[in-house]
Amino acid sequence: MINKLVANIRKTNAPIVVGLDPTDKLIPDFLMKKAIEQYGETLEAAGEAIWQYNKGIIDAVCEDIPAVKPQIAMYEQYGLPGLVAFDKTVKYCKEKGLVVIADIKRGDIGSTSAAYAIGHLGSVKVGNTVCKAFDEDFATVNPYLGSDGIKPFLDVCAEEKKGIFVLVKTSNPSSGEFQDKNFEGKTLYNLVADKVAEWADSLMGDEYSYVGAVVGATYPEMGKILRDIMPHAYILVPGYGAQGGKGKDLVHFFNKDGLGAIVNSSRGIIAAWKSENYKEFNDGRVGEAARAAVFDMKKDISDALKSL
Amino acid sequence: MINKLVANIRKTNAPIVVGLDPTDKLIPDFLMKKAIEQYGETLEAAGEAIWQYNKGIIDAVCEDIPAVKPQIAMYEQYGLPGLVAFDKTVKYCKEKGLVVIADIKRGDIGSTSAAYAIGHLGSVKVGNTVCKAFDEDFATVNPYLGSDGIKPFLDVCAEEKKGIFVLVKTSNPSSGEFQDKNFEGKTLYNLVADKVAEWADSLMGDEYSYVGAVVGATYPEMGKILRDIMPHAYILVPGYGAQGGKGKDLVHFFNKDGLGAIVNSSRGIIAAWKSENYKEFNDGRVGEAARAAVFDMKKDISDALKSL
Repeated sequence: MINKLVANIRKTNAPIVVGLDPTDKLIPDFLMKKAIEQYGETLEAAGEAIWQYNKGIIDAVCEDIPAVKPQIAMYEQYGLPGLVAFDKTVKYCKEKGLVVIADIKRGDIGSTSAAYAIGHLGSVKVGNTVCKAFDEDFATVNPYLGSDGIKPFLDVCAEEKKGIFVLVKTSNPSSGEFQDKNFEGKTLYNLVADKVAEWADSLMGDEYSYVGAVVGATYPEMGKILRDIMPHAYILVPGYGAQGGKGKDLVHFFNKDGLGAIVNSSRGIIAAWKSENYKEFNDGRVGEAARAAVFDMKKDISDALKSL
Repeated sequence: MINKLVANIRKTNAPIVVGLDPTDKLIPDFLMKKAIEQYGETLEAAGEAIWQYNKGIIDAVCEDIPAVKPQIAMYEQYGLPGLVAFDKTVKYCKEKGLVVIADIKRGDIGSTSAAYAIGHLGSVKVGNTVCKAFDEDFATVNPYLGSDGIKPFLDVCAEEKKGIFVLVKTSNPSSGEFQDKNFEGKTLYNLVADKVAEWADSLMGDEYSYVGAVVGATYPEMGKILRDIMPHAYILVPGYGAQGGKGKDLVHFFNKDGLGAIVNSSRGIIAAWKSENYKEFNDGRVGEAARAAVFDMKKDISDALKSL
């Protein structure tokens, strides 16, 4: 799946991923009203509105981007109907040829991590039938529990040719509270990156590994160091746009080949229809605004990458 | 909800929690067959079998224990039908008066953690109607992203009188890989415990805080230190039984009042029917075996606590 991700990035000439992180504040009133007419003021209505909103965005941008990153928390907050919308979104994006990076940040002790790996990337037997549960292409994983929380994901990835992105340095303001602490000359994020490099080397695709890392756009100077520590790991870079990161900050996340990083924007794309910058779409044309924002983001990043 | 947890522990005289972590290997064949007859070899059949298995255990032990801890990964591996079983299990346990600790180990940047907190402990508005999604009583939370990943959980807990258990020192063999690293005299788990103590003091119930900690039974010497650092935090102790922890190892997790810790056993209870120790139930009497194992666990821990 890392090979497909690289191929999709080359084909679209866009090292970007659209974060499908719907919240009620981003969904146009007319979509929510329509869903409430159908399902009443219920979680089912919220799930339906999310799905219709996502579909509009996906239809508008699927030709121009390589991948999407649905953040499962945004669906989980609406309970089972929210997760039905998540599941529909994953399936629809895959039908459209997009690589689906499930932002689930799971991680647990070995036997439990195995269940997450199976549920999101693998398959499970019921009787004699092999069943797939959520079946995304990549998942994000939390390293706090150490190697035996990661190992079951590696096993499933090897079997299914799928991938993970391990949290190394996250984009949020207090990420440094633990991640930046220094142990005998190395920060925690650096120690995690050392492990990611090991895991990555053990599970290579054609050019890059099935094992990648999450490093926030908001910490470009750390991006530079981490890029060198994990040469074969794709870096998933959240925090572009709404969280403050800009194209010029991102250059060091990439390798000289222009590959090696994929930059996520969520609100910058999916909420473009509400933005001052895309006034012409403020009437609720979510998809058209998202497409315009994708083109602007592509240009910002490709201009920045010219300096590579 | 911490007050209810303490009251339930006093009432049952059992500082224990039963981990509802179903896997296909633990479910008796006759339950799986019956579900497959009804739903075919599908994820729905697996979900139904899990639900029937859980129901048998809950009915047998609900009078004798204060709380349950369903591990959501075990349900998530069966996709949406698995999560339907999770949701039914949570609701049924609450009807029976049990406190439900959802072992979800979520944690993300602020706005995303807020969505998890809402989905699992809080409520969400659809139109003008307040809806609850999973609505458990407690959730486990991963601290890797720092305070702003925890803060939204604290806000929801304050509003809903619910609680969290933050991962401090987990029970798995490689937990030390990052958690035991030493920064200028303090380990990572110690730094996290300092923060938990702060969060705990900011959100007190009658005797204990709404904010607790996870510390593995497999690390009793660390339990002693951590008990002192976080005097008002309840400690949720996984790793008893199948993972190797024993009653006598657990004394230091408790305060002198005999409170302050709640010990989880999963396979030791829910798979007792398959164990050599409970031969008389090997024919598939899951509930009766679970009840016998609960009594043995209660005795093991209460004998150990006599030394307090």
